[in-house]
Amino acid sequence: MRFKVKRIKLSTGWPHIAILERSDATALGLHPVDRVKLSNNRKSEIAILDVSSSSDLVKKGEIGVFDELSKAIGDVPWVKLSHMPKPASLEFIKKKMEGYQLTRLELLEIVKDITLRNISDVELTYFVSACAINMLTDEEIIWLTEAMIATGEQLSFRRGIVVDKHCIGGIPGNRTTMLITPIIAANGLLMPKTSSRSVTSPAGTADTMEVLCEISIPVHRLKSIVKKVGGCVAWGGEVKLAPADDQIINIEHPLSIDSEGQMLASVIAKKASVGSKHLLIDIPYGPEAKCRTHNAAKKLGEKFLWLGEKFGMNTHVAITDGSQPIGNGIGPALEAIDVMKVLENHPEAPLDLKAKVCYLAGIILEMVGKAQEGQGFELARATIESGRALEKMNQILDAQGRKIWHFSEIKLGKLRHTVRAKQKGEVSSVSVQAVSEIAKAAGAPLDNGAGVYLYKHVGDTVKRNDILFCIYAVSKGKLDLAVQELKKHKVIGY
Amino acid sequence: MRFKVKRIKLSTGWPHIAILERSDATALGLHPVDRVKLSNNRKSEIAILDVSSSSDLVKKGEIGVFDELSKAIGDVPWVKLSHMPKPASLEFIKKKMEGYQLTRLELLEIVKDITLRNISDVELTYFVSACAINMLTDEEIIWLTEAMIATGEQLSFRRGIVVDKHCIGGIPGNRTTMLITPIIAANGLLMPKTSSRSVTSPAGTADTMEVLCEISIPVHRLKSIVKKVGGCVAWGGEVKLAPADDQIINIEHPLSIDSEGQMLASVIAKKASVGSKHLLIDIPYGPEAKCRTHNAAKKLGEKFLWLGEKFGMNTHVAITDGSQPIGNGIGPALEAIDVMKVLENHPEAPLDLKAKVCYLAGIILEMVGKAQEGQGFELARATIESGRALEKMNQILDAQGRKIWHFSEIKLGKLRHTVRAKQKGEVSSVSVQAVSEIAKAAGAPLDNGAGVYLYKHVGDTVKRNDILFCIYAVSKGKLDLAVQELKKHKVIGY
Repeated sequence: MRFKVKRIKLSTGWPHIAILERSDATALGLHPVDRVKLSNNRKSEIAILDVSSSSDLVKKGEIGVFDELSKAIGDVPWVKLSHMPKPASLEFIKKKMEGYQLTRLELLEIVKDITLRNISDVELTYFVSACAINMLTDEEIIWLTEAMIATGEQLSFRRGIVVDKHCIGGIPGNRTTMLITPIIAANGLLMPKTSSRSVTSPAGTADTMEVLCEISIPVHRLKSIVKKVGGCVAWGGEVKLAPADDQIINIEHPLSIDSEGQMLASVIAKKASVGSKHLLIDIPYGPEAKCRTHNAAKKLGEKFLWLGEKFGMNTHVAITDGSQPIGNGIGPALEAIDVMKVLENHPEAPLDLKAKVCYLAGIILEMVGKAQEGQGFELARATIESGRALEKMNQILDAQGRKIWHFSEIKLGKLRHTVRAKQKGEVSSVSVQAVSEIAKAAGAPLDNGAGVYLYKHVGDTVKRNDILFCIYAVSKGKLDLAVQELKKHKVIGY
Repeated sequence: MRFKVKRIKLSTGWPHIAILERSDATALGLHPVDRVKLSNNRKSEIAILDVSSSSDLVKKGEIGVFDELSKAIGDVPWVKLSHMPKPASLEFIKKKMEGYQLTRLELLEIVKDITLRNISDVELTYFVSACAINMLTDEEIIWLTEAMIATGEQLSFRRGIVVDKHCIGGIPGNRTTMLITPIIAANGLLMPKTSSRSVTSPAGTADTMEVLCEISIPVHRLKSIVKKVGGCVAWGGEVKLAPADDQIINIEHPLSIDSEGQMLASVIAKKASVGSKHLLIDIPYGPEAKCRTHNAAKKLGEKFLWLGEKFGMNTHVAITDGSQPIGNGIGPALEAIDVMKVLENHPEAPLDLKAKVCYLAGIILEMVGKAQEGQGFELARATIESGRALEKMNQILDAQGRKIWHFSEIKLGKLRHTVRAKQKGEVSSVSVQAVSEIAKAAGAPLDNGAGVYLYKHVGDTVKRNDILFCIYAVSKGKLDLAVQELKKHKVIGY
């Protein structure tokens, strides 16, 4: 049967949802959550059906399509509808919930259906949940990685050495990628970096880079940018390398879920998809970090080494200090300012961030032979201090689509709440979790000008009435939430 | 800030969803999945926010509300909006995912938020999934039961003995409730039965009863019906006894999830909420039943006895034969016809269904002393054969709101596919799972005229070309799906 396409200007997040008017659905024997195929002369798409309770939104003879599906079917006036059986993936998801190991083909089928937006939010949640609770076996991790690579686009460069880095996250302010990329590219290597938006933190690299330039870059543009300037920092969701991963991250967000097997698979899949041959993994550890102890970080590092090597990458793991936030700013705009200050050799540049970046970039430079052993740190530092890293960053920003010319143009939330010291002392701790929760309550990362700016770090001396930190928000409601959150924590110990 | 209410005629399933136009959301610092409070002079409701990508659906200054939220806020032209923090329930759900036991208060908080429609589909899925995979401890089962009772309405009767029964399900055609209720009520007891719609089967009792009469009965009407005629069979979702359960069932549907702790809690909560003092639990077992062995059925029975007694109910467990479907019809309309044929002592009445009903009703009659030990079965049979059960059923149908006057008016799917014997033999098996899957593929229970009608049962002799069974569907697409499903199974062995 033919239906007139009615476009409903509303996003569903990611699944393909179509709506029929009740009497049309009844006539066809169709019900909510049934799968339907929409086809026209050119192509077809599978969608999950919803049924409208009245004819206000979707009239008899019409099929309502939400944004995602609307884009996918293209600019057609009508479609034919047919029934589809439930995807086999649902049985496989249930099998994983029941604790059985999935096969290579079953995982490929699930990942395909995720990529084709052929399973609903609820169904995907069961998959994410089963993988988080029952965990993935080593074989499943390899097969999931393969499936994520196979269902996405892939990059390759005829000339040059491709390197990449990844941090497992969890430490607010740890915005090293935006500094390492220009350092590495300035030294003649290729770094086609794709980053996620935040899952559990107040800012992801993609959120922070977005303050400075465009980050939604299709794969062919990303390739030409890297060929031209040597590096880029793009949002992985648009690049469509291992795209299933982005949909999984969406579903993980509401409960801040982070499961090891899924994380390993998605990191290695993204890196393999850009054709990287050298990979550095940064694993911070600390009492409130994702890895609580050096030993836990070491174990996770071994998993990365194992999986990276399986996919043909020269992999190196750096276990770093995650006992306090890195840099001063927490939140996209505040972190972008920190990054630019380091590149400009500005007197307010956070030196802890600069030191960590030189350490990590140094390892990469040594891994590929650009620096002698023990000389990587110095080469990285020289690249910053000579202004070569800033020059490269400017080339990257121009190539991606610059939004601002200087960090002084970056807008911060206008509503502020300043916390001052009640007595003098020496700072003994800055809570990673407290800073993170307060910045999130204030609206980061979605309000990019929101967050926390730290004036004190561990070891600093504090006088009575000194500013300890400042909260930024864009609305009174969010600032109030952040101040409420503040009361639950001890942010700075002194 | 004040917003004009724009009602969007679309159901969300159950959560309360509100939509703002993007620039309004940005101005307020609000983002998708944020919680907002909508309030007017009279009342307030919490909703989960979505943001519209254009102004077609929801304009600047408007707040779009979907059906469920629209009903809840009532007929008001405008609402004020304010931020709400994320509910604490989300942390408790995550705790359960991580394998920890929840406290009584944490479970109460989660169940409250489910009842208030204050958590999203995805968030509820994590809860259901964590309970299914990590299982509930005995204490958690008790606390979940308490929480479900506390968040719903409760019934009590000043006079009369209240009895109830429950079957764990899984056997197609096993429509005993609709026969036991009139038998019990005809013998002077009270049976305020609330039933679910199907979760994993081709028909639930609510789906089947709906073929004959109204089943959406608010709690005060249910009470007056039972006071007047002694019994009723209503849909639990409308009665709002332990309403959290219905939302959980919705989420379980796409993957046909059925987890023991949640099932125990929801059954006992419903029974305690109607004030039942005597409870019979029917646990069928068989190679394709929910309980595979007699031993598994016994173990589950012990759990029901334990939890029933904890909530002050005289509980009895009947372990019954679940090796083949019960009755002839599978699917709401076909099962309703079977039920009415038994009550009318019709020559085509399925005798296996009648025998099982007399056995179960007999136990209840003995439990409360209406029959001497060993005499219950005969009393139940006499209640049917004298016509007293039919008379009582007619009173119940009239009281609930009758839809048909005789089973011959019930409409079956017009599209049929008949399967005949290829050789002669004796029927050795009828597959519970095959019949169930085929009836579901044909459209049951949502297409109530769809399903399977069995002409042969275990032990019957078969001649070549005899009809074995017939598939009913309301559309060509669904009939095709059922015929495809048919190919995967051995339905009848002979």
